[in-house]
Amino acid sequence: MSGTVYLVGAGPGAPDLLTVRAARLLARADVVLHDALVHPATLALAAHAEKIPVGKRCGAHASAQRFINKRLADAARRHAVVVRLKGGDPMLFGRAAEEIEYLGARGIRVEVVPGVTAALAAAADLGAPLTRRGAARSVLLVTPRAGAGEPPNGWARAAAAADTVAIYMGVTEAARVCRELIAAGRPAATPAAIVENASLPGARCLRGTLAELPRLAARATGGPALILLGEACCAAAASPIIGAWPNEPSSSSPTARATPAGRNRCAR
Amino acid sequence: MSGTVYLVGAGPGAPDLLTVRAARLLARADVVLHDALVHPATLALAAHAEKIPVGKRCGAHASAQRFINKRLADAARRHAVVVRLKGGDPMLFGRAAEEIEYLGARGIRVEVVPGVTAALAAAADLGAPLTRRGAARSVLLVTPRAGAGEPPNGWARAAAAADTVAIYMGVTEAARVCRELIAAGRPAATPAAIVENASLPGARCLRGTLAELPRLAARATGGPALILLGEACCAAAASPIIGAWPNEPSSSSPTARATPAGRNRCAR
Repeated sequence: MSGTVYLVGAGPGAPDLLTVRAARLLARADVVLHDALVHPATLALAAHAEKIPVGKRCGAHASAQRFINKRLADAARRHAVVVRLKGGDPMLFGRAAEEIEYLGARGIRVEVVPGVTAALAAAADLGAPLTRRGAARSVLLVTPRAGAGEPPNGWARAAAAADTVAIYMGVTEAARVCRELIAAGRPAATPAAIVENASLPGARCLRGTLAELPRLAARATGGPALILLGEACCAAAASPIIGAWPNEPSSSSPTARATPAGRNRCAR
Repeated sequence: MSGTVYLVGAGPGAPDLLTVRAARLLARADVVLHDALVHPATLALAAHAEKIPVGKRCGAHASAQRFINKRLADAARRHAVVVRLKGGDPMLFGRAAEEIEYLGARGIRVEVVPGVTAALAAAADLGAPLTRRGAARSVLLVTPRAGAGEPPNGWARAAAAADTVAIYMGVTEAARVCRELIAAGRPAATPAAIVENASLPGARCLRGTLAELPRLAARATGGPALILLGEACCAAAASPIIGAWPNEPSSSSPTARATPAGRNRCAR
């Protein structure tokens, strides 16, 4: 038996933001190795599959990537449809390279099913676009995270030059993010937002400026969160939907709102 | 009657890369205003809706955005579910700001349904990730396009600083893109690819270097296309899947391959 390993994007969180292709694959899956943050309703689509949690929040550490690789290969030797289900999109901050290389070197067929990445869901929740005709033509998707022993890189320089910035895995290091971005030349007054639980009923937006990021981050609750920067998506006047928020001055009291249900819920 | 206008991402091209939420909305839609490149099978999901093509390729020009805005507002006054269906994701290069502002100013409810953007589908087709642990931590989504009278911006400077770059709407201006990127400091030997018709059966990849972009672009066939730059996704050794391509030296003969069907089809 030589099955196929599908690297599948589970999307930003809401089960119905999965693609139709991913939903169909899950229904056919024999085995699903999944990240910790995949929604239970998404996993339930894999009705007859063995489900194996392998996310870091389940106790598997970075060094466990080798273990994941090996389990994928073992599963593909026993089953036809093996799904590696990742939050967001598999080709973006998903360690897909390591899995593709490991499996490819063993002659195991790999297919990739793209997904909706968190920055797009966060923009939908904010009700404000990432680009804006004539004003914002570039969006940087970036992480400031570096593993032990990895060389530093110019993430802040790239983030200082882009019109809009979406920072993944940065909220727990908000003080460093703020400091390095300002040092790289991004103005301290750049409009900023933290979007927690994008696309989920518990979505929550904390808005302010780049200089206020550490204070905003201190109010985050620990859900999956993304930092957004830039006039297009974060300025109070970026859209009338955002404009409808309570008009508190961001420098003294960044706004936050959670609504229990509905969509584009951060913005109303 | 006051309906809701849904700005919906149709995804990169393949009908089954639509989200489940979008598919359900289309089934309920009364009116669908859609871009020219939306797949007929996607439109067919809107079984009982009036379908109105408003993409530029259908004869509507940039100045026709006001006409689109007005038609959306008119439709929302007559119908409950109005869908504005856009290629990719609505918040990325989709002129969503103009529609949200126009509708918001008239008290019309707007919701946004995110979609899979082309860069993610292109990476899936290439079989190579946009980021790579320890090596590529940032991805810039950018367009070099500027409308008449719009100020120039630092798109090339941002693209020179990011690890990976996905250039939207740049293939027809490949010579300028190449020139401005090299002038901004991006090495001429940076691995590059043009992915045409990402996610569709006619997907095709042209690979080479940044300096070779104009020559690659001359071989493109006019389908929707994206330029990718960077070691993580475009280097010949980026993944063993790509490594399995015919090993022609990129400087003399950029590889290209189209397969009639299947997935990750550029890479095999």
